[in-house]
Amino acid sequence: MELKIAAEEMTEFLNEVFPQVKGMFSIDSLSAEKLVMRLHEDEKHLRPGGTVSGPAMFSLADVAAYVATMGFVGKEALAVTTHCSIDFMRKPEAGKDVLAHARVLKLGKTLSVTDVLLYSEGSPKPVAHASLTYSIPPFANRA
Amino acid sequence: MELKIAAEEMTEFLNEVFPQVKGMFSIDSLSAEKLVMRLHEDEKHLRPGGTVSGPAMFSLADVAAYVATMGFVGKEALAVTTHCSIDFMRKPEAGKDVLAHARVLKLGKTLSVTDVLLYSEGSPKPVAHASLTYSIPPFANRA
Amino acid sequence: MELKIAAEEMTEFLNEVFPQVKGMFSIDSLSAEKLVMRLHEDEKHLRPGGTVSGPAMFSLADVAAYVATMGFVGKEALAVTTHCSIDFMRKPEAGKDVLAHARVLKLGKTLSVTDVLLYSEGSPKPVAHASLTYSIPPFANRA
Amino acid sequence: MELKIAAEEMTEFLNEVFPQVKGMFSIDSLSAEKLVMRLHEDEKHLRPGGTVSGPAMFSLADVAAYVATMGFVGKEALAVTTHCSIDFMRKPEAGKDVLAHARVLKLGKTLSVTDVLLYSEGSPKPVAHASLTYSIPPFANRA
Repeated sequence: MELKIAAEEMTEFLNEVFPQVKGMFSIDSLSAEKLVMRLHEDEKHLRPGGTVSGPAMFSLADVAAYVATMGFVGKEALAVTTHCSIDFMRKPEAGKDVLAHARVLKLGKTLSVTDVLLYSEGSPKPVAHASLTYSIPPFANRA
Repeated sequence: MELKIAAEEMTEFLNEVFPQVKGMFSIDSLSAEKLVMRLHEDEKHLRPGGTVSGPAMFSLADVAAYVATMGFVGKEALAVTTHCSIDFMRKPEAGKDVLAHARVLKLGKTLSVTDVLLYSEGSPKPVAHASLTYSIPPFANRA
Repeated sequence: MELKIAAEEMTEFLNEVFPQVKGMFSIDSLSAEKLVMRLHEDEKHLRPGGTVSGPAMFSLADVAAYVATMGFVGKEALAVTTHCSIDFMRKPEAGKDVLAHARVLKLGKTLSVTDVLLYSEGSPKPVAHASLTYSIPPFANRA
Repeated sequence: MELKIAAEEMTEFLNEVFPQVKGMFSIDSLSAEKLVMRLHEDEKHLRPGGTVSGPAMFSLADVAAYVATMGFVGKEALAVTTHCSIDFMRKPEAGKDVLAHARVLKLGKTLSVTDVLLYSEGSPKPVAHASLTYSIPPFANRA
């Protein structure tokens, strides 16, 4: 499969479609094999103890799966998450950004399945592991 | 099983432990059989189209499972989510609060499993369905 | 929603489509609100200790979600499971059948989501809880 | 982490603990980084169309997660699956064995989390993706 959108264009598209999370996430790298997406550590996502909260990690996994899928599908604001399974395995490190490594395992006609591993920046052990399914509108341009 | 904390005390405990989400959630009712928890519709959780976002629904399911579990365990700030599976089934209605109906299916020595159904207020069809596992510290007081 | 197939006709359909599991499962009751399906306790599904194995419980949840969905869709051999999340919560009782209580939470154009609780017969506490997604071929007759 | 059991000893242990599935599964390779486990294609696991059934794939993912975990924990027959999320993404190829590539993402004091990708032998695209949690008895020897 080939990418239809490069990182810069994707960032503009994200900011346009989800203005409410502008500045929260950014794309470190985007290729056909893997997306690396960053959650900027930010006071409002913190739990007691100074670590990134579960909902903030879910948000990162969700947007990473969206971006990884849209890379192959093209700009398609109407794709929606239909399922997420997420295992929280370790406490993220305080004061560190969280990075999502996302890989599209399947891109079908109406569904995509994306594997996402989350890491505290600089640490080799994943803090969370998620699998997300997106429903893609049938009229999406995947010619 | 009997509840160890009533709704009012639980609300105070939540505000103390998670000050950053104060005002976002509230408890409609809490019994040994079921917790009903409310996500106040709020500009910042919205997706394009005016509906509640996936991450906001995840947050509601997560806090509802926490509160339902703590009802039986007692105040235990250190319990952590280890897993969540969530199916997003329908678009929440614009301009409506989302209600979580949570039921503890298992309360073991170190884990709880909670079933959560989410509804747009006034609608009988669930918008999402989640199952969450919490890890409970072994020193929690469950005598 | 109304059922399109009654229990007897469904049993014949199952035996025809899945001859390899004939005799393993049977339908206790089937209504628009709930399906109760039975896994006949059987030497070959047992784990050490005489309890029903995890894979046998998965099979029961899977076939129950299929039958509950087909009740509304009509005979559709080609529907396939796309996702299952299952929590194993208690050890099933030795020497007891396992009963699945299945409820279709969503029936969309291409996907169904079914909630399944599994019980050892005669016990009120669930042994497992599953959520399954079936992909339904677009040409299925759901007029 | 270092492995405590080599492939041959693990195979003997499996046959002893789960005699009912003897001959169904075998270990292709076992290292600290990855386990490759094989489901021998076999008439009794087949669906209409000659492909491996969903329950047979679940069984393979389950036993692979068990073996990958036990490699680090040592022989511990009492570990039990507490959760499995599995996405079925493609139809396995008829007449081919299915291979599980399993990787332990977390080994905690009481829980392990294992990622499993399933492939039809000779094909690069995964047929299923699973995440499994095992509960490990506290008295297990992990010194």
